[in-house]
Amino acid sequence: MKLARFLVQGEIYYGEVQAGRLRVIKGNPFSGYQVTEKTFAVEEVKLLAPVTPGKIIGVGYNYFAHREEFREKAVLPPEPVIFLVAPSALLHPGEAIQPPYAEHEIHYEAELVVVMGKEGRDIPPEKAREYILGYTCGNDVSDRDIQKQDGQWTRAKSFPTFKPLGPVLVCDLEPTNLSIQSRVNGQVKQKSNTQLMIWSVEKLVSFISQVMTLKPGDVIYTGTPAGVGPLVVGDICEIEIEGIGILRNPVKKLA
Amino acid sequence: MKLARFLVQGEIYYGEVQAGRLRVIKGNPFSGYQVTEKTFAVEEVKLLAPVTPGKIIGVGYNYFAHREEFREKAVLPPEPVIFLVAPSALLHPGEAIQPPYAEHEIHYEAELVVVMGKEGRDIPPEKAREYILGYTCGNDVSDRDIQKQDGQWTRAKSFPTFKPLGPVLVCDLEPTNLSIQSRVNGQVKQKSNTQLMIWSVEKLVSFISQVMTLKPGDVIYTGTPAGVGPLVVGDICEIEIEGIGILRNPVKKLA
Repeated sequence: MKLARFLVQGEIYYGEVQAGRLRVIKGNPFSGYQVTEKTFAVEEVKLLAPVTPGKIIGVGYNYFAHREEFREKAVLPPEPVIFLVAPSALLHPGEAIQPPYAEHEIHYEAELVVVMGKEGRDIPPEKAREYILGYTCGNDVSDRDIQKQDGQWTRAKSFPTFKPLGPVLVCDLEPTNLSIQSRVNGQVKQKSNTQLMIWSVEKLVSFISQVMTLKPGDVIYTGTPAGVGPLVVGDICEIEIEGIGILRNPVKKLA
Repeated sequence: MKLARFLVQGEIYYGEVQAGRLRVIKGNPFSGYQVTEKTFAVEEVKLLAPVTPGKIIGVGYNYFAHREEFREKAVLPPEPVIFLVAPSALLHPGEAIQPPYAEHEIHYEAELVVVMGKEGRDIPPEKAREYILGYTCGNDVSDRDIQKQDGQWTRAKSFPTFKPLGPVLVCDLEPTNLSIQSRVNGQVKQKSNTQLMIWSVEKLVSFISQVMTLKPGDVIYTGTPAGVGPLVVGDICEIEIEGIGILRNPVKKLA
């Protein structure tokens, strides 16, 4: 089942995607809801990022081939490497990525994003699915110059507009074997499958929950496959994940 | 003026510290308040961390001598290095730091903490003070083994109990020339002064607000001076900053 969050006539709604229309729900996806009879055409609404996360958690090097393209010796890390990104980096589908430093190298990173549905700490891997609300597409846009200068990744990945999320949240998706792609101006740049993730969604949720309390609406960007590369002003970047859809964002000059 | 947040008789209050007593306020420190006639003795309440931050922002290497003890070539970084820590790491004054890995090296780090009072983005340094509510003491407890393994600092610094904060919030403090100390079991370990900070409080607030939206209650751990070292179970760690007070936390085995 696909859920969208959207803005129409000055109001924000959640709705189920049914046969190309959005059927408004009463309540919310976290605590339960009923569908109503009110519907909108997808074309008449503005889609929003499906949640407004309190925390954006990132995972480094979760596909072996991406680790290889970044490091000479691609040793499998003993545990996932995690980091946090500022929630103010969130970007809605269709809105523009606006790099603050025009001269820096900015990269796209296609990622499967886990959306948490319940609060949890010390979640065992075998119970992780109970805490997950669903999945969406994310673009972990990164300023490589700042990433290199800082060593720490938070700043390079936290600028406003650097975390596109959407277009919809899919709750009944099996995340273990999904094609994942990024395209720039229609040209395929990354092409992989979530079955190549080093750490599964369940292991990541469990691991992160041993460090911090996960809350409803928190999102986990689960790492990017090989093939990352630059974005420049004027580009259109698309992240597509099987069963979810296409997250499309143009790159514009910061006003 | 000193403010404390505290628990007494099952209720949480903010109060002004006046002549050793806590005078309850009506309202809150962010949007304004009036003092009431209700007071408690400090001894009869449990002091809490003065705020419950939405974001905990850390600053790396903000004292030259600490940078030197960590890196062979202590080159002044061109800009501050920032990172984010999970809010669930917050610890109240007096409560126990509980390292999850008994065999790892755990370090204390005494830090002046800035508490934000207003929402802001792109704050110029000369206006930073208008956005600051006050200052308190922080201990940026770190698992050095994990810090080294991950490269990224978020996990090493985000475990539950790893961010002691308090004991009080001081609003009318001039932060530029304050002695700062850490002690373990009464023995002085770090002894410095905030005038040795590489990046001033105003510059940090301005810099961070160019990356992310700062919100009321967000806290900035402004970096630690030289002299960091280990904490083991049974230790009592104290962070003392001139004009604020002593943040005292024991180290206990994780139950």
